[in-house]
Amino acid sequence: MKLHFLGTGSSYPTTKRGVSSLALQQDDGSIWLFDSGEGTQIQAQKVAISRQKINKIFITHLHGDHMFGLPGLLCTISSQFGLTEEQLEKEVPHVDIYGPKGLRRFIYTALSLSRSPLIFKYCVHEMVPVASQYSEDWEDWDVDHSEPSATHPSELPGVTVEPSVMEDGNVYWKLIDNEEWCVRAGWIHHRIPSFGFVINEKDRPGTLDKSKLVSLGVKPGPVYGQLKSGKSITMENGDVITPEMVLGPPIQGRTLIILGDTSDASPLAHMIQSCDVVVHEATHDDTLVDKAVEFGHSTPSQAVAFSKSVGAKVLLLNHFSQRYSPSSKESLKEGEETVALLEEQAQAAAAGTGLSVQCADDLFVYEVPGTRRANTRIIGGTHGWRSTT
Amino acid sequence: MKLHFLGTGSSYPTTKRGVSSLALQQDDGSIWLFDSGEGTQIQAQKVAISRQKINKIFITHLHGDHMFGLPGLLCTISSQFGLTEEQLEKEVPHVDIYGPKGLRRFIYTALSLSRSPLIFKYCVHEMVPVASQYSEDWEDWDVDHSEPSATHPSELPGVTVEPSVMEDGNVYWKLIDNEEWCVRAGWIHHRIPSFGFVINEKDRPGTLDKSKLVSLGVKPGPVYGQLKSGKSITMENGDVITPEMVLGPPIQGRTLIILGDTSDASPLAHMIQSCDVVVHEATHDDTLVDKAVEFGHSTPSQAVAFSKSVGAKVLLLNHFSQRYSPSSKESLKEGEETVALLEEQAQAAAAGTGLSVQCADDLFVYEVPGTRRANTRIIGGTHGWRSTT
Repeated sequence: MKLHFLGTGSSYPTTKRGVSSLALQQDDGSIWLFDSGEGTQIQAQKVAISRQKINKIFITHLHGDHMFGLPGLLCTISSQFGLTEEQLEKEVPHVDIYGPKGLRRFIYTALSLSRSPLIFKYCVHEMVPVASQYSEDWEDWDVDHSEPSATHPSELPGVTVEPSVMEDGNVYWKLIDNEEWCVRAGWIHHRIPSFGFVINEKDRPGTLDKSKLVSLGVKPGPVYGQLKSGKSITMENGDVITPEMVLGPPIQGRTLIILGDTSDASPLAHMIQSCDVVVHEATHDDTLVDKAVEFGHSTPSQAVAFSKSVGAKVLLLNHFSQRYSPSSKESLKEGEETVALLEEQAQAAAAGTGLSVQCADDLFVYEVPGTRRANTRIIGGTHGWRSTT
Repeated sequence: MKLHFLGTGSSYPTTKRGVSSLALQQDDGSIWLFDSGEGTQIQAQKVAISRQKINKIFITHLHGDHMFGLPGLLCTISSQFGLTEEQLEKEVPHVDIYGPKGLRRFIYTALSLSRSPLIFKYCVHEMVPVASQYSEDWEDWDVDHSEPSATHPSELPGVTVEPSVMEDGNVYWKLIDNEEWCVRAGWIHHRIPSFGFVINEKDRPGTLDKSKLVSLGVKPGPVYGQLKSGKSITMENGDVITPEMVLGPPIQGRTLIILGDTSDASPLAHMIQSCDVVVHEATHDDTLVDKAVEFGHSTPSQAVAFSKSVGAKVLLLNHFSQRYSPSSKESLKEGEETVALLEEQAQAAAAGTGLSVQCADDLFVYEVPGTRRANTRIIGGTHGWRSTT
């Protein structure tokens, strides 16, 4: 499982750094995309991931630097599928898109006015924000977030995801819950409703101990699968073999937290006690904390504080103001700064805690430690989320 | 006056070539932008033009590769203006945007859902297509092209531009008509309503012959301006000096034709007898003419035929299928072709006609021959179009 940082800049793209987009490449090659600012599809061409493998897209919030690249990306994926009529009759691939209320109207308007049919189907699953996500002046500008009255020809009905309220009053949005994954969203402070995503890879059964199976007289066949899936079997001689007898310890799933823009991600912390990786913005450096917070953003020290509160092992920073050049830039003009400054501040804040910190430049790849899955999936092939609602 | 080809590819942007966008840089530095596909703002950063100098944007048609970069571009221009409150009180800059019906809904939806206020004002002037621009299956997909019911906080009312019908039945859309410019649009064949723009720089009075003025006893002062503007003056001794007596021959304005996607631009030809430059698409090479026309596009020979029909001196080709690499690409993989193939075909078709032909790679700059204007204008400072309607 790898994280490809396609765009790590805030506000607007430059020739040095794209705007927000992050690809989670799973071990079977399929891609979940988080945000799609303008130019995401160009950035994706620079790395070894196939845009055709994107089967889920998560939009953290509706600011343009996080979603203006989405319509073009969908059109390009479509133009490059190269599926035959026969293949399409058998299975029309589909892409699930998750994001805040209003996202469907944006996608529909762009794709229908540009008269862009797609060769795959897409569903938009909109999250309904809670009152605490809206700024005081929200109603001053009356924006139509409602769903369009028509449906795009390539669109399947999506689900409106209402917040789930827990006993202690905390909320979350349940997006995916299948055999492999549990993905929930939580709200975080920003100028407009902004979400973070908590991605839990579910624990899997341990590996079968083949020598043990042989010693117990269990021959290879479908029973192996039954034991692996947690079912006991009865031998011809009446002996019962339980999974515990032949399975190694469960393989623990990994947990990632990928956040949208925020000045304070604490409303989401209730969902996590520990996690492998946090991706957190750090738009400005610590000396500009007032400016950062005023515009709904964070500094390295804030990101570290949040990461510590959720027991993270690794913190990856992104969404840098374009005033900070990539760390690799050797010759700086007077007054220019690189993200090295932000990384230093984060490392100082994390010193002694065991939290590992890094700033992600564009095209940086982070390999999440852990085991690989061998499943093969094609785009749109697995949508456990739909079966649970 | 220069043409900066910011993006010359069709359909989707790649790392080698952006999608449609062309900047007309006038002699005073102000920019008129023609189309704004995804990534236009990144391309613009690579050349010596300032995005803050853009004061008019023309969208040829609503396909995504011609307009998906517009919302992001407007946001970036806005974020970089750096005007003080005091300056804004004196003059709020504004940008005029011209394009087909539906453009206002696209811009409004993107800017309002992303909650992007702008620091300048914009007006969308929508052209209403004529029946012959619609494909037979147009009504099969019911798309809402109507204007949104609300107005963006940074928006000024635009004008709905109906076609003007000439005595012979031909039509055109009058967009700008002031002292310096006449800009009209005409329709051209494509899969969706697509427009070409005919840009006439108006003839200007000749230069004052100073030695003649001295010999006639006319002393420097406001009378110079009166003579220059075509008015006669009466001397103290009663002599009348007419402009013809002291002005050189008028300086002829230049004419440019900038076309949207088309398989046949002839419906626009009635507007022009001769012109300096035609910018015409050549999506595919001549051997693929059937494919080109099926998808509403042209080949080099078609572009040459049109250019000859309107008496053009120079033909610049753009909007190439991404299968054709830039001409500068030295190492081609097997099966790859460059635009050199398209240029050869165009030059063969133009041989002996005096028409000069060139394929434009991204960032190619063409300097339109002719004189320079010394006027200084700021963004939004001149909008003669408004004063004539």
